[in-house]
Amino acid sequence: MTDQSPDLDALRAAHPDHWRRAAAIRTLTLDAVAAANSGHSGMPMGMADVATVLWEKHLKFDASRPEWPDRDRFVLSAGHGSMLLYSLLYLTGYPKMTLDQIRDFRQLGGITAGHPEYRHAPGIEATTGPLGQGIAMSVGMAIAEEVQRARYGRKIVDHYTWVIAGDGCLMEGVSQEAIALAGKLELSKLIVMWDDNRITIDGKVELSDVTDQKQRFKASGWDVIEVDGHDPDAIDVALNQAKKGKKPTMIACRTHIALGSGAQDTAKGHGALTDPDLISATKRAYGWEEAPFDIPADLKSQWEAIGSRGAEARAEWETRLAEMGSGKRADFERALKGEAPRRLSATIKALKRQIAEGQPSVATRKSSEMVLEVVNPIMAETIGGSADLTGSNNTLTEGLGIFDADNRAGRYIHYGIREHGMAAALNGMALHGGVRPYGGTFFCFTDYARPAMRLSALMGVPVTYVMTHDSIGLGEDGPTHQPIEHLAMCRATPNTHVFRPCDTVETAEAWELALTSERTPSILTLTRQNVATLRKDYTSKNLVAQGAYVLADATAKRMVILMATGSEVEIAMAARDLLERDGIGTRVVSMPCWELFEEQDEKYRRKVLPAGPVRVAVEAATRFGWDRWLYGERGRRDKGAFVGMHGFGASAPAEDLYKHFGITADAVAQAARDML
Amino acid sequence: MTDQSPDLDALRAAHPDHWRRAAAIRTLTLDAVAAANSGHSGMPMGMADVATVLWEKHLKFDASRPEWPDRDRFVLSAGHGSMLLYSLLYLTGYPKMTLDQIRDFRQLGGITAGHPEYRHAPGIEATTGPLGQGIAMSVGMAIAEEVQRARYGRKIVDHYTWVIAGDGCLMEGVSQEAIALAGKLELSKLIVMWDDNRITIDGKVELSDVTDQKQRFKASGWDVIEVDGHDPDAIDVALNQAKKGKKPTMIACRTHIALGSGAQDTAKGHGALTDPDLISATKRAYGWEEAPFDIPADLKSQWEAIGSRGAEARAEWETRLAEMGSGKRADFERALKGEAPRRLSATIKALKRQIAEGQPSVATRKSSEMVLEVVNPIMAETIGGSADLTGSNNTLTEGLGIFDADNRAGRYIHYGIREHGMAAALNGMALHGGVRPYGGTFFCFTDYARPAMRLSALMGVPVTYVMTHDSIGLGEDGPTHQPIEHLAMCRATPNTHVFRPCDTVETAEAWELALTSERTPSILTLTRQNVATLRKDYTSKNLVAQGAYVLADATAKRMVILMATGSEVEIAMAARDLLERDGIGTRVVSMPCWELFEEQDEKYRRKVLPAGPVRVAVEAATRFGWDRWLYGERGRRDKGAFVGMHGFGASAPAEDLYKHFGITADAVAQAARDML
Repeated sequence: MTDQSPDLDALRAAHPDHWRRAAAIRTLTLDAVAAANSGHSGMPMGMADVATVLWEKHLKFDASRPEWPDRDRFVLSAGHGSMLLYSLLYLTGYPKMTLDQIRDFRQLGGITAGHPEYRHAPGIEATTGPLGQGIAMSVGMAIAEEVQRARYGRKIVDHYTWVIAGDGCLMEGVSQEAIALAGKLELSKLIVMWDDNRITIDGKVELSDVTDQKQRFKASGWDVIEVDGHDPDAIDVALNQAKKGKKPTMIACRTHIALGSGAQDTAKGHGALTDPDLISATKRAYGWEEAPFDIPADLKSQWEAIGSRGAEARAEWETRLAEMGSGKRADFERALKGEAPRRLSATIKALKRQIAEGQPSVATRKSSEMVLEVVNPIMAETIGGSADLTGSNNTLTEGLGIFDADNRAGRYIHYGIREHGMAAALNGMALHGGVRPYGGTFFCFTDYARPAMRLSALMGVPVTYVMTHDSIGLGEDGPTHQPIEHLAMCRATPNTHVFRPCDTVETAEAWELALTSERTPSILTLTRQNVATLRKDYTSKNLVAQGAYVLADATAKRMVILMATGSEVEIAMAARDLLERDGIGTRVVSMPCWELFEEQDEKYRRKVLPAGPVRVAVEAATRFGWDRWLYGERGRRDKGAFVGMHGFGASAPAEDLYKHFGITADAVAQAARDML
Repeated sequence: MTDQSPDLDALRAAHPDHWRRAAAIRTLTLDAVAAANSGHSGMPMGMADVATVLWEKHLKFDASRPEWPDRDRFVLSAGHGSMLLYSLLYLTGYPKMTLDQIRDFRQLGGITAGHPEYRHAPGIEATTGPLGQGIAMSVGMAIAEEVQRARYGRKIVDHYTWVIAGDGCLMEGVSQEAIALAGKLELSKLIVMWDDNRITIDGKVELSDVTDQKQRFKASGWDVIEVDGHDPDAIDVALNQAKKGKKPTMIACRTHIALGSGAQDTAKGHGALTDPDLISATKRAYGWEEAPFDIPADLKSQWEAIGSRGAEARAEWETRLAEMGSGKRADFERALKGEAPRRLSATIKALKRQIAEGQPSVATRKSSEMVLEVVNPIMAETIGGSADLTGSNNTLTEGLGIFDADNRAGRYIHYGIREHGMAAALNGMALHGGVRPYGGTFFCFTDYARPAMRLSALMGVPVTYVMTHDSIGLGEDGPTHQPIEHLAMCRATPNTHVFRPCDTVETAEAWELALTSERTPSILTLTRQNVATLRKDYTSKNLVAQGAYVLADATAKRMVILMATGSEVEIAMAARDLLERDGIGTRVVSMPCWELFEEQDEKYRRKVLPAGPVRVAVEAATRFGWDRWLYGERGRRDKGAFVGMHGFGASAPAEDLYKHFGITADAVAQAARDML
């Protein structure tokens, strides 16, 4: 372990076979980045030795069966070094990752994106690149492994989660949330290999950091090992030691970025090395004489042998799975596929019937709890949690048990005040599979979790965010805690279902959609304050699935359409009463999920929102986005009004705030009258 | 320092005067929370001793002159404990903070919001409540102090920044970014008092954390002191020691939440204690016999004496300021007021003239650098920086110098990979005053900085975010790095100016508006890729100030209006050429700032966007929000089209992506033709 430049010839002489294998990664990286004229050469060149030892001797995998559930997970948190992963997948013989794909690095239609994209190719366990996300998702993967192991036993579930993280990952705040959570939960099968290369884009790490990372990890309950990241024997020892630990382990791998190149140990080495002279000099230094993208057959064979060394273990595992009782196996396989149990539909319907009869007046956060109370017992794969707002988010139901080092069967996680870490952990759990995670915080703190929530959408993982206190209706906590722009922010995000149910029935329907979603995350935005049951007549059909629907139609000639979501639907209904009383026919459209409404055919959308009547939208949030429904969907030009927020909120009891900001039935009725 | 329950009688006997002063805070808190029937009692009750010693013996302030520039800053990062701050402001005699305001805690129209709101009352140095923000902003305050001290000398600038932070603040990831940054920068005048009460909302801290916070701070270069948070002598010693340190100091104050109440040391004690029996029992335990909200006159006098103990120092400071050279003093006072120098306008105009002549084809991130190159030399108060993307954000200009422990005169900060910590630091600098901060990252990583960026808007501080790589135009880095929903997210946020300039001239105008903004943060979204100069004719008028304007009008009969921003204005101009060539009169409206356009009168808006022509909006981002301009502003029903993104981006060269996603002049022209 030295800060001096390594002697490449000595390294090569000491471990000639290892050196060649690692050089394959390094040179493929150089060639692909040069071909793309873009990318990041330095990290794969620096971490090739660590990755080679890991894949050759430790990582449990079978390249021919990338979906083997009990494989080790490998997460490249430093996602800009994507060529490290692509090289490994190609060399070991994963499906889809051909040499042509490597040649097409960062090109349109390829699977070798600038940063690893989940679903692009087998072996890419997570989308990484936004720094810190990989290490934070890996915590969720390790949680899921523990949960599954407790449930199905060590013979079926027993694998590690390996992470390569860079300085950028560790500087991002989310890494602290992840480290602290993993330390508290004693996730001993989580192993982070820190690429300690002391370089960032702006220059030396010391330009912006003096943190002793080893001390920092120890402070949160991790084991820490230091290793020379270019010494394969030492790396092997370190990885073995890490696997035996009782805590999560961080291995500080002292490496040299862009090893062996003229840009070694410099910020330039972080980026794209494309200079032909530099590349050829570097290859010479490696003792590499092949043509670009050329991997000699014998070397490819060595790597493919590594790719298949897990085949036997995988076959044995399949035998063990086959020996498991058929009921348990079916359950295991169903949960892995992400399928909800058949009973879910009937369970939701029964609850809806009960609610339509009882017509409770409760906060929709409470409605959500009522749903979870009937769902959690029949869906053993749910894993709940909250970022330290359990009693406010109503996310904990009886009998779940707290997941902890002493209770791996627990199904509820105290995430602490870590919204970002929680969201990333939810992603990790969903990626791991076999569990269906949900987590709660105040809707306003969507802000803290944004980077991970965006990844939920981009990766297409069906996690559920339980976001309570969804408007000024939270009252006295004031503008820092009152969402205004957050509905717009979430709705503007592709592949995200934002549900804002108006009562318990809609909440149950929204949950059903969330729990059966295959590739879309769901955000449930829920009230703190009580709302009446508005869906008084039981329907077996899930109306929220249509996104918007007619909750109450005009009795007189239809002159007005009121559109609303969540707690404001009750206000729209009261406004309808006022207008109908004056003979003004008024329809109320509940719009709990804009995205699902947009997916309906035009005929249905026009049926719900016919041209002709004036429209008023009511939502205790920004107007931003509402013009789509006020005008765009054949609305009447200049005949649309919005009743909602026009700036930040204020600190006061909720009722006072609704009056103060003019979000009342009177105001809605008046807005309609003004246009008639 | 003990985990056992303190003996209140013994504490009181040992320091009777101190005890009474602290009890005033505790009982005001109990009374205000009970009156509001909401709030957080436990933290002020736990930290009253620490706060009393700090304000009585250390904090440099003069309650009658809250705006004294050289006052110490006091930041209540654990903002839910707002009654601690309000009590201190009332007791020491700050303006506006009357007993009636305390009685009106958390009520409509009051200044005593649930969480402290900047601008509500003098003495509230920052809006806090979203956890971790206070400690992260305090880093910016301490930076500003160092910068100002280097500039104006110790006689004029020499004060501390004191922070009370709770477990929630320290669990939030942003705290790690803040701690690491402060440690690296050796901000020795930053002192954080950690309320080590071992309780969060869900229960004991150990439910979700095992972190050794002291070790964690030390790992990032802080001095750490431990103290019994109920022993005034020990607190005094600790605060003295902290002031002498050469590093930032964290004081772990072992306290008991909701001290002396039946809810002491419990999660219940964190929230609102409203039970009358509990309150009276607690007051009895304090030896407090007054009526609710009643502070005996002699005790109020003691506190008011504390409030005025800095008057002499303040007067002496004013003398020293008066003795400073008049030019330097005028400069100091101008910067404090946040006024730009008079030369700014002429400087921007000269640049605009030069650009109109040279008509360079450059990326707008480069345009931004060109602006900074002429602005930074004439505005000594600018403090630049980047979250480790200096070369990409083009934020560093010649001669700024790097701000560091060895160079407090440096005006550029290497924030590291810490977008969130950077944004919070920008807020803190702006709150401190005397500096005008800007900071850069990729626009997509707005996600990471969101909580702090929202606070910029809510507090109304004129910081500038330099957000480059603002669309799929960044190319190969792929969808993780390509903003789609981010323009909508920022535009939906109240009190935020989102600028997306189309060329260097617009960039210069946007910068001028950002640098002269008084109460609104600015987000400059800038391209990675080159764009042509479109404003070819020099105008002295700042056209961006109108938000949108006619860049090129129809020559034939006006049948089409193309609306675009940023890099897509060039595409709209090319589409206009195609349409005009076919005799279809086409106007191009550049819309660099929607918010400013909304602020124009209806007459101007209609002039720019007259009813009649069909409209096409072009933006390489989500459509979300565009319907406002397509239809809402007297657009033609069902005669509006959007050319932009309909999902996430992809990894490929920028040109390929524009073609792939159909954001081309041909597509825009065709969309218009389809409607004619």
